[in-house]
Amino acid sequence: MLQTKGYAVKSAESSFEAFDFERRELGAKDVLIEIQFCGVCHSDIHQARNEWGNSMYPMVPGHEIVGRVAQIGADVSKFKTDDFAGIGCFVDSCGECENCAQDFEQFCLTHCSQTYNSTEMDKKTPTFGGYSSQYVVDENYALRISDTKNLAAVAPLLCAGITTYSPLKRFNVREGQKVGIIGLGGLGHMGVKFAVSMGAEVTVFSTSPSKEDDARKLGAHNFVVTKEPENMKPLAGKFDFILDTVSAVHDLNMYLKLLKLKGVMVLVGAPEKPSEVPAFSLISNNRTLAGSGIGGIAETQEMLDYCAENDIVSDVEIIPIQQIEAAYERTVKGDVRYRFVIDMQSLNQA
Amino acid sequence: MLQTKGYAVKSAESSFEAFDFERRELGAKDVLIEIQFCGVCHSDIHQARNEWGNSMYPMVPGHEIVGRVAQIGADVSKFKTDDFAGIGCFVDSCGECENCAQDFEQFCLTHCSQTYNSTEMDKKTPTFGGYSSQYVVDENYALRISDTKNLAAVAPLLCAGITTYSPLKRFNVREGQKVGIIGLGGLGHMGVKFAVSMGAEVTVFSTSPSKEDDARKLGAHNFVVTKEPENMKPLAGKFDFILDTVSAVHDLNMYLKLLKLKGVMVLVGAPEKPSEVPAFSLISNNRTLAGSGIGGIAETQEMLDYCAENDIVSDVEIIPIQQIEAAYERTVKGDVRYRFVIDMQSLNQA
Repeated sequence: MLQTKGYAVKSAESSFEAFDFERRELGAKDVLIEIQFCGVCHSDIHQARNEWGNSMYPMVPGHEIVGRVAQIGADVSKFKTDDFAGIGCFVDSCGECENCAQDFEQFCLTHCSQTYNSTEMDKKTPTFGGYSSQYVVDENYALRISDTKNLAAVAPLLCAGITTYSPLKRFNVREGQKVGIIGLGGLGHMGVKFAVSMGAEVTVFSTSPSKEDDARKLGAHNFVVTKEPENMKPLAGKFDFILDTVSAVHDLNMYLKLLKLKGVMVLVGAPEKPSEVPAFSLISNNRTLAGSGIGGIAETQEMLDYCAENDIVSDVEIIPIQQIEAAYERTVKGDVRYRFVIDMQSLNQA
Repeated sequence: MLQTKGYAVKSAESSFEAFDFERRELGAKDVLIEIQFCGVCHSDIHQARNEWGNSMYPMVPGHEIVGRVAQIGADVSKFKTDDFAGIGCFVDSCGECENCAQDFEQFCLTHCSQTYNSTEMDKKTPTFGGYSSQYVVDENYALRISDTKNLAAVAPLLCAGITTYSPLKRFNVREGQKVGIIGLGGLGHMGVKFAVSMGAEVTVFSTSPSKEDDARKLGAHNFVVTKEPENMKPLAGKFDFILDTVSAVHDLNMYLKLLKLKGVMVLVGAPEKPSEVPAFSLISNNRTLAGSGIGGIAETQEMLDYCAENDIVSDVEIIPIQQIEAAYERTVKGDVRYRFVIDMQSLNQA
C-alpha cells in the first residue's frame, strides 16, 4: 500500500489535522497522481461539517485536483509519467449502465464512487480526497491537463468549471442571447467567463453591490443588485437563459419571470429546503426549470480543452493547507475572489 | 351589431341565466361562426366563480368552440360559408411582436385577446365566449375543422387537445419511450390518446383506482394508484417524460424522482399555491421541469389535422345549456368521462 499524507477532520465538530493513510497499489489501469493543487469547494465545507447528513469520518475532502503523473500501471495508455492530470468529483463508476453508456458516469445507476466521503466500487473501502499528497485512480477517470501555465487556477475547473460549463453547453448558449448568472462566487464567476466566451450578453445578479467592479472585470455586461425589486421589473421576459449558482434558500420565481419565450433557468446550487415554484411562472412563456449536476468524464475533458483554447482559468487565492480553517470561514462568508486553492507542497511544512 | 344569444353569470355567486348581447359586424377579415358545440373546460368554472380573482361580469364562458361558417368578410380567404371552423382560447393578438412572430400568439407581448373574460385589442371591449349562438372572429384566429363526423367530440381539442399535444410534440415524445400522464380528466385523457398515438408506453397515475379500466380503454399500458407509496418506488428513474395535468395542489417531487437521465416533466395544470421543488431532484439525472400553455394558431391547426389523420377525438358527454350548473358540479367532482360539451342548439329551447 502507498503511504499518503493528508489533512482530515475526524468529526463534524473537529478541526483539520494532519492524517496519514494508505492508497491502493497501482493496478494495471491505474495512474498515481502527485497532487500539486486542490481547490476548496463549498461542498467540502458542507461535508466536513456533516451539513448534508451523510458524512463519513475521518474525511479528507477535495475534488478539484491537479498534479503530475508520477507512476502508471502496465496497461495505461492515456497518460505517461510527468504528464499533468486532474481528478474531479468522482473516481469510478460501473461503466456499463444506461447512464455510464451515455457518458453520464456521475449518475451511474450502480454506484458513482465520489472522490471523497464515498466508497470505491466495492461499496466498502472509503475514498479520501485531494487534501493529500497523492491519488491512485483508474486512467479512465483522470483528465488530461494541457494548460499548465497556471496549474493552481486550473484546479477549480474540475468542479466549479464543469458544473457551469455543462448546462451552458446543454442549452446551447450562444451569441445574440441574453444570459443571467445568479450569484458571483466560485461557480458564478466561472459561469460569467464561460457565457461571455460563448458570445452571450451577460448580466450578473447579486445581493452585493460591491461585486459590480469584479463582475465587469470578468466580462459581464450588466450588473443587477437584486435586493431592490424595482431593478428587476424592467427585465421581465428579457432573458434566454439564467444560471442559478446560489445554494442558499432564495426566491426562484423572481428570476423565472425574467425568462422570455421558451427561456431556460438551470439550478446548480442545492438549497437545504425545497424552492417554491408557481406553475403559472413556468406555463407562461413555456418556460423551463432544469437542474444540472457536474458532468461526465468526456464532457469534463471537453471543458478543460475548451478552457485551454480560450484561455479560461479560475480566479484563485493560493493558501497552504495549514490555513484551511480560515479559508473555510472566509468561503462561508463569501469573502474569496473566487476560489481558494491549496498548494499541496505545504503538506511537507512543519 | 349582431344580436347574439348566450348564457352568462352576472357575479361569482350567481347562477347561469340567458343573456342577450351584441357581437361586432363583420370586418373584411372576419368570419361569423354559428356555434354548434362548446366544451366545458375546468377554467370556465374557475373564471365564472372568480377563483383566479380576475373575473369580469357579465361573463359568457367557453373556449372550445366548433361550428359552421355562416358568413365571411370581403377579404376572407381561409374559409368559405358552410365550412366548419373552431375557436380556441384566444381570438386576437398583435401579430407583430417577437412571440407572435414565432407563432406563440398565446404569449403576445402586447395583448392576447382571450376568447372570454378578456378584452379585444382595444383593451376595452369585453369578449364573450362560446356558451352562445355565434362568434365573430378574424379568420387568422379561427381553425379549420376537417373531421366533421363527430363535431361535439372535436370541440374539446381546441383547449384540452392543444394543451396536451403541444408539450408532447415539443419534447419529441416517441416510440420506445416511457411516458407518464398524471391525472385522468379532460386534459389527462387527451394526453393518453396523444402519447399512445405517438408510440410511447403510457402509464397513467391516478388517485382513483376506479379509473383503471377507462385508462386501459384509452390505450394506456399501465395504471398506478398514487396513494400507495410502495407503488411508486419501483418506478424511480424509469420515465422519459411525464405530463402533469393536475391543477389541485399536489406533490411534484414524487414524480420528478421517476424521471430517468435528462427526463422531462411538464406542468399544464396550475395549482393555486406554488409547488415545492427540491433542487436536488432536478440536479440528479439532469432533469427538467417545464410549463406549457395551450398553443399558437399554427400548432393548434397542426394538432387538429393530426387528430383528423389519427382518428383522435375527445370522449364527451353532450348536454343542453340548461344543465350547465349540474355539469359544473360534476366537473368539480371529477365525475365526467371526460368532457362535457354543450349542444348550442339548446339555446333555442324554452
